[in-house]
Amino acid sequence: MSKGLPKRSEDYSLWYNELVKKAGLAENSAVRGCMVIKPYGYAIWEKMQRVLDDMFKATGHSNAYFPLFVPKSLFEAEEQNAEGFAKECAVVTHYRLQNDPDKPGKLRVDPNAKLEEELIVRPTSEAIIWSTYKGWIQSYRDLPLLINQWANVVRWEMRTRLFLRTAEFLWQEGHTAHATAKEAVEETERMLHVYADFAENFLALPVVRGKKTPNERFAGALDTYCIEGLMQDGKALQAGTSHFLGQNFAQAFDVKYATKEGGLEYVWGTSWGVSTRLMGALVMAHSDDEGLVLPPKLAPIQVVIVPIYKGEEQLAQISEKVLALKKQLEAKGISVKFDDRDTERPGFKFAEWELKGVPVRIAIGGRDLENGTAEVARRDTKEKTSQQFDDLVNLVPALLDEIQANIYQRAFDFREANTTKVDSYDEFKRLLDEKPGFILAHWDGTPETEERIKEETKATIRCIALDTPEEEGVDMVTGQPSKRRVYFARAY
Amino acid sequence: MSKGLPKRSEDYSLWYNELVKKAGLAENSAVRGCMVIKPYGYAIWEKMQRVLDDMFKATGHSNAYFPLFVPKSLFEAEEQNAEGFAKECAVVTHYRLQNDPDKPGKLRVDPNAKLEEELIVRPTSEAIIWSTYKGWIQSYRDLPLLINQWANVVRWEMRTRLFLRTAEFLWQEGHTAHATAKEAVEETERMLHVYADFAENFLALPVVRGKKTPNERFAGALDTYCIEGLMQDGKALQAGTSHFLGQNFAQAFDVKYATKEGGLEYVWGTSWGVSTRLMGALVMAHSDDEGLVLPPKLAPIQVVIVPIYKGEEQLAQISEKVLALKKQLEAKGISVKFDDRDTERPGFKFAEWELKGVPVRIAIGGRDLENGTAEVARRDTKEKTSQQFDDLVNLVPALLDEIQANIYQRAFDFREANTTKVDSYDEFKRLLDEKPGFILAHWDGTPETEERIKEETKATIRCIALDTPEEEGVDMVTGQPSKRRVYFARAY
Ligand SMILES: [Zn+2]
Ligand SMILES: [Zn+2]
Repeated sequence: MSKGLPKRSEDYSLWYNELVKKAGLAENSAVRGCMVIKPYGYAIWEKMQRVLDDMFKATGHSNAYFPLFVPKSLFEAEEQNAEGFAKECAVVTHYRLQNDPDKPGKLRVDPNAKLEEELIVRPTSEAIIWSTYKGWIQSYRDLPLLINQWANVVRWEMRTRLFLRTAEFLWQEGHTAHATAKEAVEETERMLHVYADFAENFLALPVVRGKKTPNERFAGALDTYCIEGLMQDGKALQAGTSHFLGQNFAQAFDVKYATKEGGLEYVWGTSWGVSTRLMGALVMAHSDDEGLVLPPKLAPIQVVIVPIYKGEEQLAQISEKVLALKKQLEAKGISVKFDDRDTERPGFKFAEWELKGVPVRIAIGGRDLENGTAEVARRDTKEKTSQQFDDLVNLVPALLDEIQANIYQRAFDFREANTTKVDSYDEFKRLLDEKPGFILAHWDGTPETEERIKEETKATIRCIALDTPEEEGVDMVTGQPSKRRVYFARAY
Repeated sequence: MSKGLPKRSEDYSLWYNELVKKAGLAENSAVRGCMVIKPYGYAIWEKMQRVLDDMFKATGHSNAYFPLFVPKSLFEAEEQNAEGFAKECAVVTHYRLQNDPDKPGKLRVDPNAKLEEELIVRPTSEAIIWSTYKGWIQSYRDLPLLINQWANVVRWEMRTRLFLRTAEFLWQEGHTAHATAKEAVEETERMLHVYADFAENFLALPVVRGKKTPNERFAGALDTYCIEGLMQDGKALQAGTSHFLGQNFAQAFDVKYATKEGGLEYVWGTSWGVSTRLMGALVMAHSDDEGLVLPPKLAPIQVVIVPIYKGEEQLAQISEKVLALKKQLEAKGISVKFDDRDTERPGFKFAEWELKGVPVRIAIGGRDLENGTAEVARRDTKEKTSQQFDDLVNLVPALLDEIQANIYQRAFDFREANTTKVDSYDEFKRLLDEKPGFILAHWDGTPETEERIKEETKATIRCIALDTPEEEGVDMVTGQPSKRRVYFARAY
């Protein structure tokens, strides 16, 4: 097959877009800014969902489902949150269509079916959920309330990109309520670490764990934590956020609980989410000019086996051996595809599975049959070796683990090589253009300086990392004192 | 705990509504006609999803995701479908809010952010999906295309009921494309049988498999198949539908394929779906005046263990034995809850787990400790027996199977007892009021007669069952000849 993929080095952005489409992950739809997630892409998303869902349940959360629509009066109750999202809200104003009297066979909105109160298509669900929590929380016995929702949300974006920024996207949103601020902060941090573990152990993406600056906080939160990964073009990507909401939503929706001591207090809230944006991170972090490079733990197909044969008889011989191996590997929980299509040549198949990022490819031909061997190719290093066929059942699981580890290590080394401490603004600007990546620089802590840097360089403070040591320094722009370096980068 | 449930015999409808709320399945939301699915209800829905999803994959389908919104011009392309849903469409007309100049702190729809073309919130996804399929299908090699989507949909209903009829609901919708009419019909029937198997083997609900009359077909389909269950009040509930779409959508969206022989033909389509309505069927089919009766295969908690103890020491002794048993049962794939709350008394716990429909309850007290016994209570029959504690690990799995089978059998016997052959219209009307259920009667095949019966009795033709034998007869209303009986009932 002819892939026709642009090279990363020539046009990273076009490479990404074409790869997402050609590998069968997603495509643009007839609806402005909304994507279609194609079966292969959705299969990866399902694997992510399953892993994350298990992690949420292991940390005590239950799933529930809340309405898609938020009445305007509820939406605007928490003012900061409402203002933060107001500019990107899709609004339902009518509930009926009728035949268009002027255009036979066409429909128009029925002017008599106007809603008394407009409905906002949820851009996030704090408002509808906290209005519900008011009925669920009376006493300390009802706390903590630990709920997660898998849902679609809509944020009307003017400039969209497949997975990274779309008008509709899929996500999960956790919404919890606690008796004390301390417990809510612990929850906020717990879920940040769940996200970081997921990113590192499944996406194979090393992430910086940190806090956002006040400027970059979620609208309505007292603190926003995030994980930030570095993509191959040196731009950062926020892969998950976890918010400490304080009592903001409890106050807006009057959610109080009777304490053990007989008092009545507002509860403390958190919310946290990851979305189909993770699909974009997955592609951008690891893939190459030949196509996707999927970490084995998220690959819908972990092993593909391609027969190279002359005639039906040889195919039958190969098939017999392959199907036995397939069964053995599947018994170990490995997903295996035997690509015995007779409509395509092996070279075409090789290229197709490379494009789709299958971690391990096994090819077996006539000579292999004689010698009891097979050719094993790794997607990550493109290394090929000849192996004893009988060894494969043990070798393949170990190889998948090795590939998972190698992909992570490669991304980790890349990030290390592209994280630079900088003390002068000139150097900062030079690096952003010449060697983009994370820049660790001192910042005076003011929104003014942050804003200035953003305007002048398009770099933003990605986060104040949780593990950055205290260090005396001065802001590279203003010369004001600073106590620690923060992570800067241009970002998706 | 005080359940305060109405009795089925006194007010079935109120009983249903209160049970759904009190058992923690769902509740009404602040959004007209939209429900909140609560954690316990969602946990059951998740079990349904998992089973159905496995069945869809086993029959060759892949999941994907298509946009929530359908541009009006696409929506109206297949005219029958569009007209069928036009009266219940939520319509997005604007994409931004702004501060309301007249009301500080409030928002209003930004009049300058009106969409050029209105977006319909999907009531079903044929239009957006077939407009996508046009790009996916070129040749016979692309067929069959077997896709499923898990999604939320919106149908603006004036009179809503939790799970049974809500403005927003969750469902899956399969959308497939085939080279021939024969293959598409086979697919339509295959999925009907998947639904029927699911209903009978998991929901424990016997269903009639049949075809809808032309009047009751899905808008845009050539044929609609359905499964129909009988609820305890003698009303029928349609639990799933599968549609043969012919070439209607292929023509509306110009989806053609190159045949092997070099021709160009429209493809043939199907669609099929089940929704959170199944939750309503589950409740209505089996539950009683004490609460839910869940089939073990769909119960989030299959076994609850309640300690009856005096003092910490006795609790510790009981806990040790119980936790060992719990581990053994969990190793067999059984979900077990040990309810050792010290804030509630055993009687309260018994009532609560009864309300929640947990199939098996085990109680263990001081005397049991001495005797090596435990009390085992079945939710379905309310039978209690004393058992040797050491036998439980083998007894419980068998008991769960027995309960599953018994719940099905009970529903089956109920349906048999409430399915009546009727030959006179007077008898038909009398039965509907005095002994509601399925009525097998002859029908002359005309929409006029069907419509008249519906208007006069509120009973509809639920389906023409696939397994009804041919039988000469006359329509009970018109005296016109009929070749087979059809299923009538009042329905949800
Ligand atoms: Zn960060
Ligand atoms: Zn039917």
